[in-house]
Amino acid sequence: MSSLHLLGVIGSIRKGSHNRALVRAIGEELPAGVTLSFYDRLGELPVFDPDRKDNPEVVEHFQAAVRAADGLIIATPEYNYSISGLLKNAIDWASRPPPTSPLRGKPVGIVSASTGISGGMRAQYHLRQMLVFTNSPAMNQPEVIIPRAQDRFDAEGKLTDESTRELLRKFGVALAEWVERFRTA
Amino acid sequence: MSSLHLLGVIGSIRKGSHNRALVRAIGEELPAGVTLSFYDRLGELPVFDPDRKDNPEVVEHFQAAVRAADGLIIATPEYNYSISGLLKNAIDWASRPPPTSPLRGKPVGIVSASTGISGGMRAQYHLRQMLVFTNSPAMNQPEVIIPRAQDRFDAEGKLTDESTRELLRKFGVALAEWVERFRTA
Amino acid sequence: MSSLHLLGVIGSIRKGSHNRALVRAIGEELPAGVTLSFYDRLGELPVFDPDRKDNPEVVEHFQAAVRAADGLIIATPEYNYSISGLLKNAIDWASRPPPTSPLRGKPVGIVSASTGISGGMRAQYHLRQMLVFTNSPAMNQPEVIIPRAQDRFDAEGKLTDESTRELLRKFGVALAEWVERFRTA
Amino acid sequence: MSSLHLLGVIGSIRKGSHNRALVRAIGEELPAGVTLSFYDRLGELPVFDPDRKDNPEVVEHFQAAVRAADGLIIATPEYNYSISGLLKNAIDWASRPPPTSPLRGKPVGIVSASTGISGGMRAQYHLRQMLVFTNSPAMNQPEVIIPRAQDRFDAEGKLTDESTRELLRKFGVALAEWVERFRTA
Repeated sequence: MSSLHLLGVIGSIRKGSHNRALVRAIGEELPAGVTLSFYDRLGELPVFDPDRKDNPEVVEHFQAAVRAADGLIIATPEYNYSISGLLKNAIDWASRPPPTSPLRGKPVGIVSASTGISGGMRAQYHLRQMLVFTNSPAMNQPEVIIPRAQDRFDAEGKLTDESTRELLRKFGVALAEWVERFRTA
Repeated sequence: MSSLHLLGVIGSIRKGSHNRALVRAIGEELPAGVTLSFYDRLGELPVFDPDRKDNPEVVEHFQAAVRAADGLIIATPEYNYSISGLLKNAIDWASRPPPTSPLRGKPVGIVSASTGISGGMRAQYHLRQMLVFTNSPAMNQPEVIIPRAQDRFDAEGKLTDESTRELLRKFGVALAEWVERFRTA
Repeated sequence: MSSLHLLGVIGSIRKGSHNRALVRAIGEELPAGVTLSFYDRLGELPVFDPDRKDNPEVVEHFQAAVRAADGLIIATPEYNYSISGLLKNAIDWASRPPPTSPLRGKPVGIVSASTGISGGMRAQYHLRQMLVFTNSPAMNQPEVIIPRAQDRFDAEGKLTDESTRELLRKFGVALAEWVERFRTA
Repeated sequence: MSSLHLLGVIGSIRKGSHNRALVRAIGEELPAGVTLSFYDRLGELPVFDPDRKDNPEVVEHFQAAVRAADGLIIATPEYNYSISGLLKNAIDWASRPPPTSPLRGKPVGIVSASTGISGGMRAQYHLRQMLVFTNSPAMNQPEVIIPRAQDRFDAEGKLTDESTRELLRKFGVALAEWVERFRTA
C-alpha cells in the first residue's frame, strides 16, 4: 500500500475536547504508511455567506488542506443532538462549489465522543446525511462512538482504556483500506 | 385569545434570502393579536465555545429576545442537506444552560424555502431532532416547505403565489393556537 | 385531572422483550387516574397494502383501540438503526386515511430499551419523523432511552434499577400532563 | 468490466407502483454487461421474529437472492416519512445474523418515486441510516428522487420523461462503477 495522508477535522474548540483526544489516539494506532495531521483553524472561519464571491484567506487555506488530504477523519461533538455549529459552518465552506468542491469524492471516517450515554451518535447520522450531498463516501464500520469519554481518557486527554484502543486500531486499518479503495488509479 | 408575540429567526444572511421573504409573508397573514419581529443579529454571534464562562453581549441580547417571545418561527435554508452552520451556532448558544435555557419549553413553528426541489425539508427534520434536546415543542402541521421559491416570490421578495399565501395563513392560525396551548396559565 | 387512558404499543413480538417490560414498569408508576392497557395483536396485522379498499378485521380492531385511547406509549426496539418492520407496518395501517386517521392529533410518549449502548435512541428519532406526518404530538422530555437493559431488568422482566424507576415515574407524570394538554375541551 | 448482476428490491406491493416502474426503467438503461432481476416475494415474508431459530423457506429464498447479487437497487415508497413496513421487515430479515448477513458489504443504489413533492427523499435518508448498521455501502450520487411521478410515467408505468431517463442512465453507469469498486478481487 502506498502512503496515505489523513486530515483530522475536530468539531469542537474546547480545550479539553475528548474528540480531539480521540483523534490523537487514532493517530497513535494508524498502520504503517498512514500519516495524520490536524486542521487547527476551524474556529477562524467566518460565517458562511453565499453572497460572498471571493473567499477569505482562511477559507482558501481550509479548502486547500482538505484537497491535499487523501481522506478525512471528522470528529464531532454532539450539541443539541446534532453536529456543532462550528463543524457545520466548516462543511458549508468546504462544500462549495458543489461540482468541484474539496469534499467531492473525498473518503471520510467519522468518530465521536461524549461525556453522556450517546457517545455522539446522534450527531454522526446527521453528518452522514450531509456527506451524501457533498458526495463524500463515508465508511460504515467499525463505528467509533465513545460514550462516557471521561472514563476512558485521563485529565491530559490520554486514552487509558485498552478495548477502546483496540477499536481505534481496527478503525485505522479499515479507514486506510476505505481511502485506498477510492483512490483514482 | 390574548395577544401573542412571535420572533422570526432566519437561518440565512443572504440578502435576497427566500427564507426571510417567506417569514415576511407569514407576518402579513397572521391572525389579529399576533405580532412578529425579526431577530437581526444572528450573523454577529461568535462561534459557540463551551469553555467560555461569560456570554458576549450579543449572546445575551439573542437569549433575551428568545426569552421575551411567546413563540418562534424558525426559517431554515438547506445547506448540505441540513440547517446552516449559522443557525446551528445560534441554537447552540440559545440552548445553554439546558435546564433553564431560553429555548426550553418555547413553542416553535418551522418553515423553509429553497430554489431546488426539496423546499428545505431535509433541514427541517434535523432541526426537529435538535428541538427534542432543547425541549421546545415544534408544531407538526401544516408544514411549510417551499420548493422552487424563485417561482413564487418576485425579485423584491414579494410572495406572488396565492396557494402559498393560503398555506401561510393556515400556518399562522395553527401556530397561534399551538403557542397558546403551551402558555403557562 | 380527569381520568386518562393510555394504550401501550410494543414494537417487538419477542417473548422476553425489554420494551414490553419497560412499558409494564411504566404502568406500575403512573399517577392516580391514569390507566394503561397493551395492544396485543400487532403481529397479526397483514402487510400494509394501499390497493386494498376494505380493512381486514384486525386492522379495524387496531384502529379502534388507537382511537379509544387518550394517548399512546410507543415502545420501540432498534433493528438496523430504526424501528422494527412490525411497528412500521402498524403505523402504516394506523395512519390511514391521513385526514381522519386514528393517529391524527393523538399525543404520544416514546420509549425504548436495548441490550446495546444505544438504548434504542436511533429508532426514536425515526419514529418522531413519522409522527410529524401523522400529526401526532410527541412529548420531548423526559426521554426514556434504556441502554444495557439486561442489567436493569431481571430474567422475568421485572425492573430492578431504582434510578430507572424514578425516571419512569417522571415520564408518567409528564406524559399525563402532555396528553391532558391536547385534550379537546 | 466483467458482467454484473443487480437485484431490484421494491418496497411496495401496489400494483401500479411507481417505484417498480422506476426500476424497470433503470433496467432499460443499464450499461452493457449489467443485468437486473426483480425480487418478487417480499410480501410473503412473515413478520421478523428474533426468537425464531430456523428461517422460513421464503426467508432463505430472499437471503439467497441477496447473496447471489453483486449489488442491489432498493426502491422505496415514502409512507409516513419513512420506508414502508414491508421494506423494513425485509431488511430486518436480510440483516441477520449481522456478522455474516446477506447485506454485509453488499453495494446498494437507492431510488424513490412519489406522487407528492418529496419524491420519497424522506424515506431515503432513513434507509441510508439502516445500511450503516448492515454495513452495505450505499452510493451517494446521482440521487434518484422522483417527485410527481404520475407526470413522468404513463398509466402502464412506462417512463415518458426524457430528462428522467437521462438521469437513470447516469445512475446505472455510476452504480455499475460503484459495485465494481466493492468487488472482492
